[in-house]
Amino acid sequence: MIEIITIGDELLIGQVVDTNSAWMGRELNLAGFDIQRITSVSDKKEEIEEALESASKRATIILMTGGLGPTRDDITKQTLCDFFNTQLVFNEEVFADIREFLKGRVSNINDLNRDQAMVPEKCQVIRNSKGTAPIMWFDYNDSVVVSMPGVPTEMKMAMTNDIIPRLKEKFNPGHILHKTVLVYNIPEAVLAEMLTQWEEQLPDDIKLAYLPAPGRIRLRLSGRGTNMELIQNKIEEAVKRLKPIIGDNFYGEEDVPASMIFADFFKKTGKTLSLAESCSGGYLAHLVTLMPGASAYLKGSLVTYSNDMKQKLLGVDGEILNKYGAVSEQVVCQMALGALNVTGSDYAIATSGIAGPEGGTDEKPVGTVWMAWVGPGQKVESEVFRFGKDRERNIVRTGEVALIELMQRMKKGVL
Amino acid sequence: MIEIITIGDELLIGQVVDTNSAWMGRELNLAGFDIQRITSVSDKKEEIEEALESASKRATIILMTGGLGPTRDDITKQTLCDFFNTQLVFNEEVFADIREFLKGRVSNINDLNRDQAMVPEKCQVIRNSKGTAPIMWFDYNDSVVVSMPGVPTEMKMAMTNDIIPRLKEKFNPGHILHKTVLVYNIPEAVLAEMLTQWEEQLPDDIKLAYLPAPGRIRLRLSGRGTNMELIQNKIEEAVKRLKPIIGDNFYGEEDVPASMIFADFFKKTGKTLSLAESCSGGYLAHLVTLMPGASAYLKGSLVTYSNDMKQKLLGVDGEILNKYGAVSEQVVCQMALGALNVTGSDYAIATSGIAGPEGGTDEKPVGTVWMAWVGPGQKVESEVFRFGKDRERNIVRTGEVALIELMQRMKKGVL
Repeated sequence: MIEIITIGDELLIGQVVDTNSAWMGRELNLAGFDIQRITSVSDKKEEIEEALESASKRATIILMTGGLGPTRDDITKQTLCDFFNTQLVFNEEVFADIREFLKGRVSNINDLNRDQAMVPEKCQVIRNSKGTAPIMWFDYNDSVVVSMPGVPTEMKMAMTNDIIPRLKEKFNPGHILHKTVLVYNIPEAVLAEMLTQWEEQLPDDIKLAYLPAPGRIRLRLSGRGTNMELIQNKIEEAVKRLKPIIGDNFYGEEDVPASMIFADFFKKTGKTLSLAESCSGGYLAHLVTLMPGASAYLKGSLVTYSNDMKQKLLGVDGEILNKYGAVSEQVVCQMALGALNVTGSDYAIATSGIAGPEGGTDEKPVGTVWMAWVGPGQKVESEVFRFGKDRERNIVRTGEVALIELMQRMKKGVL
Repeated sequence: MIEIITIGDELLIGQVVDTNSAWMGRELNLAGFDIQRITSVSDKKEEIEEALESASKRATIILMTGGLGPTRDDITKQTLCDFFNTQLVFNEEVFADIREFLKGRVSNINDLNRDQAMVPEKCQVIRNSKGTAPIMWFDYNDSVVVSMPGVPTEMKMAMTNDIIPRLKEKFNPGHILHKTVLVYNIPEAVLAEMLTQWEEQLPDDIKLAYLPAPGRIRLRLSGRGTNMELIQNKIEEAVKRLKPIIGDNFYGEEDVPASMIFADFFKKTGKTLSLAESCSGGYLAHLVTLMPGASAYLKGSLVTYSNDMKQKLLGVDGEILNKYGAVSEQVVCQMALGALNVTGSDYAIATSGIAGPEGGTDEKPVGTVWMAWVGPGQKVESEVFRFGKDRERNIVRTGEVALIELMQRMKKGVL
């Protein structure tokens, strides 16, 4: 059993979101380890000590991040010395690594950098190729404590290249299998009722979890055991019975972002895509271009945030704009056709809505979003969505929904 | 002292990042409370119990989120009953709220929804206007335990409207003051050395923390006390002495995203902006449009992901493209001028780079990003940046740096 301890006042007062432990949890879980607990504590010595003490009573593996920077708000190393009854010593190899890392980055090594080469005598040092803070591995009884810097790139590099392989070798964690089924546009309680009978028939060693996201639910099936083929068969059997129950609301079965599901699907069609964005304001293009290889199919996006840009860049009719307003079926369809024509792409998506917090009316409240999709033969599909009041959520949902809806329409042969 | 307990297997295996506790930490801290610890545990009854037991020995306020959805992977309520030695009873008012909330959303109330109206007899129920899971407040001795759903909108509404006001009334936490100074483009250890003397002169009751972000460092000064005017004066005095040391690398003093600093600055100029994006792929437009009121100054963004779009939409010269490649000073400058001319904006920003993971060469490795800024009189400034190997980080840094650099150039009068 593993516990993760993340250190830093900034985590407790919410100035930094702890994404490290989520990343570590995912990687360790894929490697077959169970994560029992994640604890975030402040930079205070007694807090770190108490967290380490109590974790050591429950867990055999303790992974710590944070509290190792060059600046004076860091006291983790001294705490580790006290816990393991050892002292800090100057480590030539660590210092050589620090010098190497800083070469060309700073004009000269300062005392703070030199201090970073002081490490507890009892630990094994794991080299940090991405920064100046050392990574420390302590063996004690049959347990392990590892202390890493809180900078995500440094932590990830050390976990991937050194720590996870060493843990696997030392603890031989067995295997775990996950399968995620992606469901779209069904409220959680409704879905739960639809699945009651199916759930009752799940084998005992297959666990189900509902993971809600904006407008979507991920159903996660997990199985653990020694006979992985058997577990895999059980999971596949369960998924096979699940799909007809979900029907059209099923949209994928990989635990990856909606944009990745879309990218994998769209890339295979060999077609090209363009975007015309108003309320999504570039986020739709960002979702698509975040995926490597987007240049193979994305021509571009025209983020026409003002009405004159909608006319000038996309050829939207000024009279239609005046008559129906920018957030309307008429305008969003013209935007999609405009993007198709300007870029010469095979498909186009357009969005126009009121993201908020201002700009809502009785007829078109904040959260009203029109979308249009156009495909071969200039066939246009459009739909209006009523999202919520939160600007960021409205933008994110617009982006995700726009991609899933195009994919679903293409799969059904509507576009 | 407050402890937060977040519940859910999905947190431990990294399928969901725990953003709730960061939000809660920030709001509670602003309200003058100290957050001592954040613990994330699985949905297992014994884990929740143990976390609650041990937190109750250290903290006077325990805030729990998660484990209250309508589906069967939720067991928090039963655990709370055992801890407080009470039982679940049907609550008519909660059921009325659930019915009201689901009206128009689902066709009929199911058993799972009815179960949600079962609450521990000993608790006070706080109404949940954003969902169906009840919010439960337990008083015991001089302490408080509150259990909330894990859905962020529901948790935030309850915290803001009910829980924080009640906690303030009951515990009278005093005041805390934070001030953040934003520094740009100085490595942490170099900054720490520059600030050594200044730090030594800080008053004892003013605390300093370094909060690194990609390419930036936030310096946070915190003071706590009863005489807030005195604390404020001390912090302001310290900031006044700090600014000349940081010089041009100072770019703001509010703990908000770089894009908000930019938006606040740019909006005041009364000028308009347009964007021409290649490697940032719409993220730059997203950063700008995420801020409410962006339509007042943003004309639009031309996300020209392919070379032919750069020519067609921005008028980039095909020969220049062939000769220097898309990732070059020549092309990025033409892109910026193209955006200015096409949209008629006062200022424009252009980006062209190799985000990765593919597409790097010896001469232009992954992470090479050219940016250009153009302003009145078509004056163009350009600069090349060498970021890292990670696609997402390169995109994010490109967006943030592009905005800060335009702002700095405008402030200096270069553009």
